[in-house]
Amino acid sequence: MSILSSTIPHSELATRYCTVRSATEALASRLTPEDQMVQSMPDASPTKWHLAHTTWFFETFILGPHANKYRPFNEHFKYLFNSYYKQLDGHPLRSVRGAFSRPSLEDISAYRAHVDAAVESFLSEDSPALNDEIAALLELGLNHEQQHQELIVTDIKHAFWTNPLRPAFIKARPQSTDKTSEMEWIEYAGGVSQIGHTGGEFSFDNETPRHKVLLSPFRLASRLVSNAEYMEFMEAGGYRRSELWLSDGWDHITANAWQSPMYWEKAENGWQVFTTSGMQPLNLGEPVCHVSYYEAEAYARWRGRRLPTEAEWEVAAAALPVKGNFAESNRFHPGASEDASRSQMFGDVWEWTSSSYSAYPGYRQSAGALGEYNGKFMCNQFVLRGGSCATPESHIRATYRNFFPPHARWQFMGVRLADDRA
Amino acid sequence: MSILSSTIPHSELATRYCTVRSATEALASRLTPEDQMVQSMPDASPTKWHLAHTTWFFETFILGPHANKYRPFNEHFKYLFNSYYKQLDGHPLRSVRGAFSRPSLEDISAYRAHVDAAVESFLSEDSPALNDEIAALLELGLNHEQQHQELIVTDIKHAFWTNPLRPAFIKARPQSTDKTSEMEWIEYAGGVSQIGHTGGEFSFDNETPRHKVLLSPFRLASRLVSNAEYMEFMEAGGYRRSELWLSDGWDHITANAWQSPMYWEKAENGWQVFTTSGMQPLNLGEPVCHVSYYEAEAYARWRGRRLPTEAEWEVAAAALPVKGNFAESNRFHPGASEDASRSQMFGDVWEWTSSSYSAYPGYRQSAGALGEYNGKFMCNQFVLRGGSCATPESHIRATYRNFFPPHARWQFMGVRLADDRA
Amino acid sequence: MSILSSTIPHSELATRYCTVRSATEALASRLTPEDQMVQSMPDASPTKWHLAHTTWFFETFILGPHANKYRPFNEHFKYLFNSYYKQLDGHPLRSVRGAFSRPSLEDISAYRAHVDAAVESFLSEDSPALNDEIAALLELGLNHEQQHQELIVTDIKHAFWTNPLRPAFIKARPQSTDKTSEMEWIEYAGGVSQIGHTGGEFSFDNETPRHKVLLSPFRLASRLVSNAEYMEFMEAGGYRRSELWLSDGWDHITANAWQSPMYWEKAENGWQVFTTSGMQPLNLGEPVCHVSYYEAEAYARWRGRRLPTEAEWEVAAAALPVKGNFAESNRFHPGASEDASRSQMFGDVWEWTSSSYSAYPGYRQSAGALGEYNGKFMCNQFVLRGGSCATPESHIRATYRNFFPPHARWQFMGVRLADDRA
Amino acid sequence: MSILSSTIPHSELATRYCTVRSATEALASRLTPEDQMVQSMPDASPTKWHLAHTTWFFETFILGPHANKYRPFNEHFKYLFNSYYKQLDGHPLRSVRGAFSRPSLEDISAYRAHVDAAVESFLSEDSPALNDEIAALLELGLNHEQQHQELIVTDIKHAFWTNPLRPAFIKARPQSTDKTSEMEWIEYAGGVSQIGHTGGEFSFDNETPRHKVLLSPFRLASRLVSNAEYMEFMEAGGYRRSELWLSDGWDHITANAWQSPMYWEKAENGWQVFTTSGMQPLNLGEPVCHVSYYEAEAYARWRGRRLPTEAEWEVAAAALPVKGNFAESNRFHPGASEDASRSQMFGDVWEWTSSSYSAYPGYRQSAGALGEYNGKFMCNQFVLRGGSCATPESHIRATYRNFFPPHARWQFMGVRLADDRA
Repeated sequence: MSILSSTIPHSELATRYCTVRSATEALASRLTPEDQMVQSMPDASPTKWHLAHTTWFFETFILGPHANKYRPFNEHFKYLFNSYYKQLDGHPLRSVRGAFSRPSLEDISAYRAHVDAAVESFLSEDSPALNDEIAALLELGLNHEQQHQELIVTDIKHAFWTNPLRPAFIKARPQSTDKTSEMEWIEYAGGVSQIGHTGGEFSFDNETPRHKVLLSPFRLASRLVSNAEYMEFMEAGGYRRSELWLSDGWDHITANAWQSPMYWEKAENGWQVFTTSGMQPLNLGEPVCHVSYYEAEAYARWRGRRLPTEAEWEVAAAALPVKGNFAESNRFHPGASEDASRSQMFGDVWEWTSSSYSAYPGYRQSAGALGEYNGKFMCNQFVLRGGSCATPESHIRATYRNFFPPHARWQFMGVRLADDRA
Repeated sequence: MSILSSTIPHSELATRYCTVRSATEALASRLTPEDQMVQSMPDASPTKWHLAHTTWFFETFILGPHANKYRPFNEHFKYLFNSYYKQLDGHPLRSVRGAFSRPSLEDISAYRAHVDAAVESFLSEDSPALNDEIAALLELGLNHEQQHQELIVTDIKHAFWTNPLRPAFIKARPQSTDKTSEMEWIEYAGGVSQIGHTGGEFSFDNETPRHKVLLSPFRLASRLVSNAEYMEFMEAGGYRRSELWLSDGWDHITANAWQSPMYWEKAENGWQVFTTSGMQPLNLGEPVCHVSYYEAEAYARWRGRRLPTEAEWEVAAAALPVKGNFAESNRFHPGASEDASRSQMFGDVWEWTSSSYSAYPGYRQSAGALGEYNGKFMCNQFVLRGGSCATPESHIRATYRNFFPPHARWQFMGVRLADDRA
Repeated sequence: MSILSSTIPHSELATRYCTVRSATEALASRLTPEDQMVQSMPDASPTKWHLAHTTWFFETFILGPHANKYRPFNEHFKYLFNSYYKQLDGHPLRSVRGAFSRPSLEDISAYRAHVDAAVESFLSEDSPALNDEIAALLELGLNHEQQHQELIVTDIKHAFWTNPLRPAFIKARPQSTDKTSEMEWIEYAGGVSQIGHTGGEFSFDNETPRHKVLLSPFRLASRLVSNAEYMEFMEAGGYRRSELWLSDGWDHITANAWQSPMYWEKAENGWQVFTTSGMQPLNLGEPVCHVSYYEAEAYARWRGRRLPTEAEWEVAAAALPVKGNFAESNRFHPGASEDASRSQMFGDVWEWTSSSYSAYPGYRQSAGALGEYNGKFMCNQFVLRGGSCATPESHIRATYRNFFPPHARWQFMGVRLADDRA
Repeated sequence: MSILSSTIPHSELATRYCTVRSATEALASRLTPEDQMVQSMPDASPTKWHLAHTTWFFETFILGPHANKYRPFNEHFKYLFNSYYKQLDGHPLRSVRGAFSRPSLEDISAYRAHVDAAVESFLSEDSPALNDEIAALLELGLNHEQQHQELIVTDIKHAFWTNPLRPAFIKARPQSTDKTSEMEWIEYAGGVSQIGHTGGEFSFDNETPRHKVLLSPFRLASRLVSNAEYMEFMEAGGYRRSELWLSDGWDHITANAWQSPMYWEKAENGWQVFTTSGMQPLNLGEPVCHVSYYEAEAYARWRGRRLPTEAEWEVAAAALPVKGNFAESNRFHPGASEDASRSQMFGDVWEWTSSSYSAYPGYRQSAGALGEYNGKFMCNQFVLRGGSCATPESHIRATYRNFFPPHARWQFMGVRLADDRA
């Protein structure tokens, strides 16, 4: 990533650090130490691990190399909480993160406090070591931690869903309306535009360099696809009609017996969905969520439309303010578009694009372990845009590129339709 | 199992119940709530689950059907803590037991207290409901709980081994001697003997009916195979010589790259083994432990000997007192045979026999869910005898039949040699 | 195996050799070169491979070590047609036998002719090299070839079944009667008997040593379980009632969605079965066939009976003449027991026993590669007795022990009930 | 695909049909009926199946719906030789194609003759049924058959490689030079260009619509990466340095123990490669071949370069004549670039691009079963360009898009480097 210089004034780093770290702990505080142990599938991680790994990041990339006299909290943690950086000294298998009863949550809290104290000291006025490159690393670490805040929510949602007791992460939320604004088409002229990050504020390296793209005229739906609309697809036999699906998608839904989005369950009195507030009746006005790329693509095909490319999405989003239903609302559930003013472009659910995740023209991966952050995943993944109800508002922007393999659906993921202009 | 009548006077049931239940809790008290969450492989279970499942047994088979006005602690537990009884209302997949952060350990403790109070009330003098069949069920439940006491130890040992920090379950034990008594052959005449349980005290149904067997003259080793002896096998290339192995065994050790017993690790300064007290230097005098049937059988073949049949073992053991290194010693680790008086027939390690686990002549499985306890596992398993350092002393006897598939080795399992008499 | 001395007069060896080898070729001659290529599952082998491997046996164990000046047909075949003898120089993966278009069938035929000529020369009057041990090896090779004759039939049956055209191995057979003699119980007194081979004629080593067994009084069904009877089990929900099954069996039938014996297919006009003569309507009088141990055991349990032990079976069979429906009838399909005189103890289908395949008391595996013939499979297999409609009559005897894992069912395998005597 | 109208004059269809069909048979004629049975992995198919499936295409899409009175050769073939068209009546599992000894090769030849006669009759002057749409279908069928000609070669190469005898498909080829022209950079200005097919001659639908692309200035290597250059990567530890690899790629090479391109084997006297002429010493001047996308991408990264996008490749190729080392040379092996005039842009090996296989802007999949031809594979595949030594010359063009998943390497696949212009 472009880690040449920080976009935060050094004087504000300590405050920002404190704000982000506290937000993580606020999330975790909703959970017991036992809850924070659960790893319900290899792709997900225990909360406790997220708490430790984000801390490890500051220790490994900032305190270790740059803070004079910093003493690691525990020599074993260097290995234990490395996620996937192969250029460091190895890491445990992802699938056994749930086996780490030790260190205890108490130890992890002490680890966080130890690192927090060291970072705060490092950032204090008297510290001569802080320079702009290190400030940039710190900013990266904070953005990294915000990514894990989102994963804490999506991973515990999955964990609680595998528990037959179906616990809730938050108290029951007020039901949003089941009405939805009418879907309209918004037209875009196409032509040569620019996408990618301009560099004024923080971005990940995969958002750069900013570059020109050439687009045909296109249009985008004024809001997300709703549960009501997706139900029409299901009722039209969408999950049984092979011609609607990518070949890999058909194989996947067949092998896994998928017949609805994730977390949907048919009860006697209609569809229920598992939410961060436990099981709830399906709200037809809310955007469809927890669908894979396969399902998003099949739905669009069935409607005779298509998914947007990431360039189309970004061109459209660049003109809009970054506001919506984010983590700060503490709902952790997407909401309906009650009226036409609510485009849902930011927040609610990540929107699948038809773009494979690949390098922008001129992109070069950084050297060293941090170069592994983004570039090595540019294969068999699709780009999602716009953030979700579990994304911190300060973390998202129009140029932000998220990515997941086409079968993934445990994140808050949904669909916005696109089409060519006649 | 033979559940017609209890072998414990009714007046002693309450005391016995209390003793066994407390022993379980004493084991668990060595562990944090987080430790009690860990399931490190599908065959193993979290401690918390063992605590709940053993309680479920009393609720399901005694309190539910027989205790007037008993109110279940939580309706969901009926499903949640069923292990494998298909005739009941289903059970969760074994592999997700580690995902149950809820109910919390605190809830499980309350569940135990709730059931304990109800059982104690049921057993009190005024209870008219207690009859001999129910007393027998209770006795079965206590023996069932003792089986899970052993599993708590073997499962947490495995769990801690998967943790890179390698925690200890108990404080470091005093090192036993690395000397071993000389191995001698004890001769047996063979002929017609009887094996199986006589019925005076408790037994599982698979130990019955007592019946005649016809044995050729045989001999048994005076003690278990030691680590020193097993090392000779390893140094002679035992794990690389296909001709020493069963076909399935060779495939298994090749596919899993086994080159030593489980928990052995070669360090710079020699072999280390993971124990309930953490990593320890290998003690050559101790019996070899954590070997599969495949390894036990290959070792015996390499020595030009064989494993005993279960009938041979029982005929020899019937004459001996049930004493040895059991769970009560709180060592949870096998010890050396320092002198010829210590035969190690009981305790230390379970001894693999060459006998497939099958029904005794005339055996009939009970009707109902409890009939699933033993009979349905009579396939692709081998019998082990004698108990181990994790078995409660009051739980074992000469007729006791334990069984595991030939590749299993996370229990305390070892080898005693046998041979035909010239 | 006991290969000390041959049981065939040396003067008859050449004739016997010619007879057995011709029988193999007669079977293969029903098939095209393309048919002889097919390997439809890893457990089965192409006909062409059977032709070559049986020839390899004579080359490897007799001509190579003992025939002066013998020159191998092709140096590569030593490796290519080794089945599983680890002590020789390796062998190809079992699962790729179907990839060997080269050597061609023509080459394999030339290989057979080359080895036949060398063996015949070796057996000729002038050969000084022939001694009793070599004669015993040759006899073993002929019995080995007969085993592969049976596999040629069962493997091509499976191969043709996977072909949507469902070809026939032999012309349509005359339908046998769908009536069955009444099933009666034949009583046996039990007590001490002897089983195992006496040594007068050929046997495999796993049939020795002959030894005493102690049996309780028992009874055996007068004939095999019929399709009609097995249908009652199916109609009573046999495949849906977990309490009838071994735990492994239930897992297996669930995972594989078994709902009937292998090769059964429900058509509009009733059950059809795939036979060596292609698809045929199910004949209710014929013995049920192509059932696994799991199914045999569940059926017996449902009837309130059990399977015989191998000792019980042998004691009963020892008194009977070896006659029945064998390969020589060229039907390759089991037939009904039309009247009480037809016990079906020999031929028709192999009969599952409840005995795990293990060593007889005093059994010692031979040294060298031939020691791998039997002993290394004594794990997780059950014994079957009596031969089938694909077994050569001269190959079977009362002491013969066949063995397969409990899930196997592509051999001609069926069920005879046993019970304790009241 | 764009099947509105044929690009071949109707009067030439019969000749073209005959030419293409004969070329297929000429390839197959190098093989025995047994060779044509082999399926050595699920991704590959037996030659016999290719012969039948290409014929099935004409029967299913032309003769069946359009030829009056056409009678199918065999009703079962409709199902048997469907590859993957889900909208038709089903198809066998891909992995069992090697089990089809019946129909015999002789039957398949008769099937081909039957269909050929019907097509020729249909194309004859008197046939009133031929119209432009049908002519276009026929042209599609011929291009489809040419694709399978290439697969016949790559699949039998794989099949023969799994055979320990390592047979040759063609006689030993003359060794090409091991000298290679110097690699130079050819510069391209970038800007707005057009890619995609113009429609004058045949193309597949995935090459359309022709559309504008905006390219940054770039440069391409003047020839393919040679074996000598790839060896430098290997000798620099390329297969052991995780930082050079995509995350999926590293997992894949680790799990499969890849340490060189496919078909390479290290012998005592140096590297050997398996070719269509059997094992041969590695020729350092030849282009590296049988590498996956993962390897191509890691190699480029190690060189500090990158792979071309498909647009870059096409812009460069559009200016060049379609000539090179194709199937017509009957070498079926890539050759060295002896001098600078030989760019290897067409023929030799397919060139991996960094472009995921996806729809061109404005692309719409056809309705009906033929719509499954291309669109449903647009997921987790990368585009390859330029054809190979197994591609018919008349089949390839600058706009042609081939695609395979990133781990595939049994096709003739290689690497051309690209870079940004300074």
